Amino acid sequence: MTTPKTIAIVNGPNLNLTGIREPEIYGNLSFDDYLKQLRLSFPEVEILYFQSNVEGEIINFLQSCMGKVAGILCNAGGYTHTSVAIADCIAAIQIPVIEIHISHVLAREEFRKHSFMASKCIGTISGLGMEGYRLGIVYFLSKFKS
Amino acid sequence: MTTPKTIAIVNGPNLNLTGIREPEIYGNLSFDDYLKQLRLSFPEVEILYFQSNVEGEIINFLQSCMGKVAGILCNAGGYTHTSVAIADCIAAIQIPVIEIHISHVLAREEFRKHSFMASKCIGTISGLGMEGYRLGIVYFLSKFKS
Amino acid sequence: MTTPKTIAIVNGPNLNLTGIREPEIYGNLSFDDYLKQLRLSFPEVEILYFQSNVEGEIINFLQSCMGKVAGILCNAGGYTHTSVAIADCIAAIQIPVIEIHISHVLAREEFRKHSFMASKCIGTISGLGMEGYRLGIVYFLSKFKS
Amino acid sequence: MTTPKTIAIVNGPNLNLTGIREPEIYGNLSFDDYLKQLRLSFPEVEILYFQSNVEGEIINFLQSCMGKVAGILCNAGGYTHTSVAIADCIAAIQIPVIEIHISHVLAREEFRKHSFMASKCIGTISGLGMEGYRLGIVYFLSKFKS
Amino acid sequence: MTTPKTIAIVNGPNLNLTGIREPEIYGNLSFDDYLKQLRLSFPEVEILYFQSNVEGEIINFLQSCMGKVAGILCNAGGYTHTSVAIADCIAAIQIPVIEIHISHVLAREEFRKHSFMASKCIGTISGLGMEGYRLGIVYFLSKFKS
Amino acid sequence: MTTPKTIAIVNGPNLNLTGIREPEIYGNLSFDDYLKQLRLSFPEVEILYFQSNVEGEIINFLQSCMGKVAGILCNAGGYTHTSVAIADCIAAIQIPVIEIHISHVLAREEFRKHSFMASKCIGTISGLGMEGYRLGIVYFLSKFKS
Amino acid sequence: MTTPKTIAIVNGPNLNLTGIREPEIYGNLSFDDYLKQLRLSFPEVEILYFQSNVEGEIINFLQSCMGKVAGILCNAGGYTHTSVAIADCIAAIQIPVIEIHISHVLAREEFRKHSFMASKCIGTISGLGMEGYRLGIVYFLSKFKS
Amino acid sequence: MTTPKTIAIVNGPNLNLTGIREPEIYGNLSFDDYLKQLRLSFPEVEILYFQSNVEGEIINFLQSCMGKVAGILCNAGGYTHTSVAIADCIAAIQIPVIEIHISHVLAREEFRKHSFMASKCIGTISGLGMEGYRLGIVYFLSKFKS
Amino acid sequence: MTTPKTIAIVNGPNLNLTGIREPEIYGNLSFDDYLKQLRLSFPEVEILYFQSNVEGEIINFLQSCMGKVAGILCNAGGYTHTSVAIADCIAAIQIPVIEIHISHVLAREEFRKHSFMASKCIGTISGLGMEGYRLGIVYFLSKFKS
Amino acid sequence: MTTPKTIAIVNGPNLNLTGIREPEIYGNLSFDDYLKQLRLSFPEVEILYFQSNVEGEIINFLQSCMGKVAGILCNAGGYTHTSVAIADCIAAIQIPVIEIHISHVLAREEFRKHSFMASKCIGTISGLGMEGYRLGIVYFLSKFKS
Amino acid sequence: MTTPKTIAIVNGPNLNLTGIREPEIYGNLSFDDYLKQLRLSFPEVEILYFQSNVEGEIINFLQSCMGKVAGILCNAGGYTHTSVAIADCIAAIQIPVIEIHISHVLAREEFRKHSFMASKCIGTISGLGMEGYRLGIVYFLSKFKS
Amino acid sequence: MTTPKTIAIVNGPNLNLTGIREPEIYGNLSFDDYLKQLRLSFPEVEILYFQSNVEGEIINFLQSCMGKVAGILCNAGGYTHTSVAIADCIAAIQIPVIEIHISHVLAREEFRKHSFMASKCIGTISGLGMEGYRLGIVYFLSKFKS
Repeated sequence: MTTPKTIAIVNGPNLNLTGIREPEIYGNLSFDDYLKQLRLSFPEVEILYFQSNVEGEIINFLQSCMGKVAGILCNAGGYTHTSVAIADCIAAIQIPVIEIHISHVLAREEFRKHSFMASKCIGTISGLGMEGYRLGIVYFLSKFKS
Repeated sequence: MTTPKTIAIVNGPNLNLTGIREPEIYGNLSFDDYLKQLRLSFPEVEILYFQSNVEGEIINFLQSCMGKVAGILCNAGGYTHTSVAIADCIAAIQIPVIEIHISHVLAREEFRKHSFMASKCIGTISGLGMEGYRLGIVYFLSKFKS
Repeated sequence: MTTPKTIAIVNGPNLNLTGIREPEIYGNLSFDDYLKQLRLSFPEVEILYFQSNVEGEIINFLQSCMGKVAGILCNAGGYTHTSVAIADCIAAIQIPVIEIHISHVLAREEFRKHSFMASKCIGTISGLGMEGYRLGIVYFLSKFKS
Repeated sequence: MTTPKTIAIVNGPNLNLTGIREPEIYGNLSFDDYLKQLRLSFPEVEILYFQSNVEGEIINFLQSCMGKVAGILCNAGGYTHTSVAIADCIAAIQIPVIEIHISHVLAREEFRKHSFMASKCIGTISGLGMEGYRLGIVYFLSKFKS
Repeated sequence: MTTPKTIAIVNGPNLNLTGIREPEIYGNLSFDDYLKQLRLSFPEVEILYFQSNVEGEIINFLQSCMGKVAGILCNAGGYTHTSVAIADCIAAIQIPVIEIHISHVLAREEFRKHSFMASKCIGTISGLGMEGYRLGIVYFLSKFKS
Repeated sequence: MTTPKTIAIVNGPNLNLTGIREPEIYGNLSFDDYLKQLRLSFPEVEILYFQSNVEGEIINFLQSCMGKVAGILCNAGGYTHTSVAIADCIAAIQIPVIEIHISHVLAREEFRKHSFMASKCIGTISGLGMEGYRLGIVYFLSKFKS
Repeated sequence: MTTPKTIAIVNGPNLNLTGIREPEIYGNLSFDDYLKQLRLSFPEVEILYFQSNVEGEIINFLQSCMGKVAGILCNAGGYTHTSVAIADCIAAIQIPVIEIHISHVLAREEFRKHSFMASKCIGTISGLGMEGYRLGIVYFLSKFKS
Repeated sequence: MTTPKTIAIVNGPNLNLTGIREPEIYGNLSFDDYLKQLRLSFPEVEILYFQSNVEGEIINFLQSCMGKVAGILCNAGGYTHTSVAIADCIAAIQIPVIEIHISHVLAREEFRKHSFMASKCIGTISGLGMEGYRLGIVYFLSKFKS
Repeated sequence: MTTPKTIAIVNGPNLNLTGIREPEIYGNLSFDDYLKQLRLSFPEVEILYFQSNVEGEIINFLQSCMGKVAGILCNAGGYTHTSVAIADCIAAIQIPVIEIHISHVLAREEFRKHSFMASKCIGTISGLGMEGYRLGIVYFLSKFKS
Repeated sequence: MTTPKTIAIVNGPNLNLTGIREPEIYGNLSFDDYLKQLRLSFPEVEILYFQSNVEGEIINFLQSCMGKVAGILCNAGGYTHTSVAIADCIAAIQIPVIEIHISHVLAREEFRKHSFMASKCIGTISGLGMEGYRLGIVYFLSKFKS
Repeated sequence: MTTPKTIAIVNGPNLNLTGIREPEIYGNLSFDDYLKQLRLSFPEVEILYFQSNVEGEIINFLQSCMGKVAGILCNAGGYTHTSVAIADCIAAIQIPVIEIHISHVLAREEFRKHSFMASKCIGTISGLGMEGYRLGIVYFLSKFKS
Repeated sequence: MTTPKTIAIVNGPNLNLTGIREPEIYGNLSFDDYLKQLRLSFPEVEILYFQSNVEGEIINFLQSCMGKVAGILCNAGGYTHTSVAIADCIAAIQIPVIEIHISHVLAREEFRKHSFMASKCIGTISGLGMEGYRLGIVYFLSKFKS
């Protein structure tokens, strides 16, 4: 039903600061630059990218993926822990979604250990930095072939 | 102070999927088509329609109704249970708001039984399907006449 | 099995005071006068009306609706919160019942938030004043047509 | 690193209604008019002003202050109590932020007593009306000098 | 003091529906028809029968039995679990009362396991269907003779 | 607005048995005889008397007092502990009501310690036997004079 | 499978004292004499009678009823509240058993309100003295005919 | 009413093993030998002795004491803690019973601290070894004289 | 002290029904037939068999084993969970006793998981069907030889 | 699928000390010597024996039994109470396993009463010393024949 | 310090059964065959593979990786939830470790939701089947290059 | 019975890393080098040394000390908190064991505060660094002399 070559990456609030903020930790590579590398690495995949600090725009984008996208990598940032609406949306669109976290959320504050969206996703990749996105694409590619 | 002929319908996140999602359950009628029927049924009313998946845009719209709209039907979807800001807004704009739920929310998950906005609304219509919106308009029309 | 044109309105204790009590709040319109307007508004419907301060007479009337009435609007007043017998009756008569409350019961005392009859009814209209009854009729009429 | 003369004021949802809403309580002075007074009082400071009802746009603005602003006065309104994402943003931008509340939030509903952002801010001024903003500027000015 | 030949049967709310409601479960025999059989079976007894859905009318009838009735069989239906007033009345009239339940109330909802009237009655017959009434009459007849 | 000389006494379920029931305890004086003495003692007051075992008829009577009665002495018997509807009625009619109990209800079973109507009445006289009614009249008379 | 004309009565510990103990309360009629009357009253039924103060002998007798008895009236006395073994036996023999209590066990000590055997029996007759046994036979006879 | 000279000693399960079991603790004196000494010590009393391991036979014997015995010393062994039936029997026979325990049951396992029969007995002698029986007889003798 | 060739099997209440009750589950083999097989299998052992539904007779039998029996296999059925007296007896007779259960009692109702006798026995064989008895004999035989 | 003649015995940590440790209690017979006797006793069975103090080697051995062994006797010693991995293994290999304990674990420390593996085994033999192993073999042999 | 080309995969107890156990669920592919594919896919990496059912051997292997291995993928199976020692080891060796789970452990038994090692690892890949291992290698490869 | 001059030191998982791991904290002294110093300090004692990461091998070594070693210093590392089997072994071998911890385990994570082996050891030395081992030897030497 969907073209298996299209994968969407959805980043939530503050993830646009990557590469600008604290370069001694995160390096000078912005997510946009990282994305360019990703696209070069996977020429056989069309990667849709969307970032927003706005909860509802994330929902807008997730809905727009219906019929166009074969898999979604979603790092909802702070909305992971507070948004019923994003979790409802993931359940509604019926596209496989992998939950991505750049930092290891299990090693942080107690309130970050609960995710409304976890039980709606097919899996979780946590703590592996920006490479978590690459891994998600690798996963979907191997799934598409099988 | 306001033109009594204008009523606003505000739908929150994921309610734009009605009619597309799970048609065997919800039928093939989209909310847009239902809205056309509503407008035909009530030629004497101008019905403003606003749907957004964005919490703050719902607030923007609710505020923009001040001085223009005589009554609001608001189905805030997943934000019903998490948004203090929408509830604050309803309290501030001093326009009568009716809380609408298509399904009988009291019969679903425990976290859906609490509504931040309930105590700021003048009433609730729950469990009567999309007809709940029609009933809300009927209510406002009779109020305008009295 | 039943003539779809007959709808019953059942009012419980103290609801006969409407229009007499606190006219600055409720206006000078008694429920009887309101009922006349309702009947004029819906000439295609026969509206049976019954009010009693007596719990058991409400049960008598609900039972008498079997085979004669297509839908019931029931505002059980104070009995909403204490009557097992009325809830048993609604379950037994197998006519669709909408629970009506003139005031917004969720915004009042804690003991008013529990309703024995809620789970036996198809929906709830709360807080919209006497217009709640009109809305219930509109709902049943659109149901009868479909 | 930043020009010490620039201070940003960020107001969250519904705070744009000040001066319009309930003038018998809040007076006829809008926040815009109050802001003009503030600017006259502090000619040595450039005051940036931003208001939005959208959680994510507040994050957008806070991020845009990086490198341009020496201190921020932030009244997040209803998002104070529900937004992990704004709190994350304040932690990320590394500009000193003072949390402002016009009313005394600790003296209101239970759910208003928890602030996600409080632990990311350098301080809080609560319950002192619009004068809280003036006090925040006074604080930053004395800091700049020391 | 009383004529030993008179026994009263008192049925509470919704018990008048027996034989009409759900005949596949309860059979086609109405309580009235069952009562005729009872009267034929016990020609030596005058059986007073009273059914009311009204709590207070049940009390009126119970009081009216003083001086006229030698024993009472009382199935208070839903009032069993909510009526202090009926229990007080049974204590006051000093006529032996047997509590009857058609179904085995101990095997139903938790709120049906408490009976206000149990401790005021001389005994209970539970779970033996409509035959429970016949057994109650047999009991009183044998008592009258002794 | 009302004639201050009229006081109503309302007795609830089973209180009509006073004087008949257990004369070794309550004496041979019926409430009717006691009422005659009361009327002789207070020639300047018209005493309306009403007794019913039916919860709803008590409400009917209380409602009928509007505009005619200056104060009410109400002993609701067993309904004291179970009736939201009588409590609602007392709140609605806006006549001062004193709650009367012949026995000391606080010294009896646990379920008799809660009164729904207590918070709607201006006071309670409990445990002083039938003299409680006389004291209630004395109170109203002193109030009328002041 | 069984001869419907045979009914067994099983009495547990201390029930053999009936008629001897406290004759001013229980009368001079022993259970044996009562049993003679029962047999005269029901010539069409063979009544097996068994009494024992020994828990296990009661089990012996209940087991011996298999294939011979159509219904059992069982008053297990003090073993009602302590015997897992008798309850296991009633479940095993698959003959309908009615639990009989001469006194009203619900009006006695707290530990008498729990019955291990209740949920294995078809019904309960409690508080009606020795006549409870007669009622049980009447019930079985009417069942045998239907 | 009874001959004051007869006292019964009733021993429950396993007490027949005294003198055989663990002679290094209990000595070589069997209860039978001890009983001979008791009878020599109290020539003015006839001592009936009964031992059984069967709960129901203990009840049989206790019942048989009615009309023949003036006092009973009862050591029910393990049945002390589990038998409602023996306790009921002691209550029924209306002969004064003293509860005897050779060991100090209150100083043993938790489940030995509850005695069903204690509240039906006139007293307890516990932990004084076999001499407890002698003390019981001394008590009864002094009672008989007074 | 004892003849090592004698082993006793003690079965408690309702275990005599094995083979008769529910043959589709337990097979057609009664315990008696199983016992014949056991005796043929172990000609060098005398197997005493005792079954009783009477708690005290089980104690009588256990005591009678003193001096005659080298080991006991005891399945106390329902008394396992209620009998202090049997547990006391096992402790007193100083013969090794193995607790046997045909079903896996740990997988049944909560009240069946507690055994008064477990801590007085030398071991437990549970869940291995009737073969549990054979295993017990094998155990004792090997013990006798060593 | 498996050769029914092969049975495995698996002993966990410290069970290799049997016969060396505390010979006055356990005798001079080591488990190895005991095993020789077992093999002589059951010439028709091949008995595989494995002991290890290492949790994972026990898992290795259990896995190696797949396809080769018809039944396993497993005494996991201290790992009984702490090992999720051994319990997972027993569930995975799908060979019937009997849990063996030499001592009576129910009579020891509280933490020894929980067994992760119990619910994965078909039964338990506890407290019968080393003979528990022989009994397990007898059980499997009789099962193999049937 | 380390040769970036070597990556270790460590599998814990029972993971060697993959491909043998329940092939209808896990397919016929053993981990060894999967490993061959992995090695073909990543010729530029030396993949050390270690599986053990032994907790301490896993620690031995993890320690042996110091100075030789650039990254570790560790699926500790049942030891995830019980081993402090493996978690201590991961903390000590200072090699980046990724925790892998084939199934989505958050969706299984409660005791499987706690991982001692999670906070010592740099990340987690959960619920993505055996592909989780491939993703881990991809992660390390990209890290080595940067 | 044993040669008092031999003392064993047993180190559990990860303690072999001392001196290699984090030298800025622990210095460059490996446990092997420290051990050489110990042996020079105590020429009159033979010190056996054993380290393993495998729980079961530690048990193997502890068992091998029987008959050869007069005292043991045991630092079980992470197994301290999870191993029933090591604790059982210490109880079995009947050699005095002192529990050693280099760090102060009571001041670390909650799960490190429970030690299964503590109650089987004669004492604990915790938090005194590697000198804890020297103190243990000093203790044993003074014991040997007395």
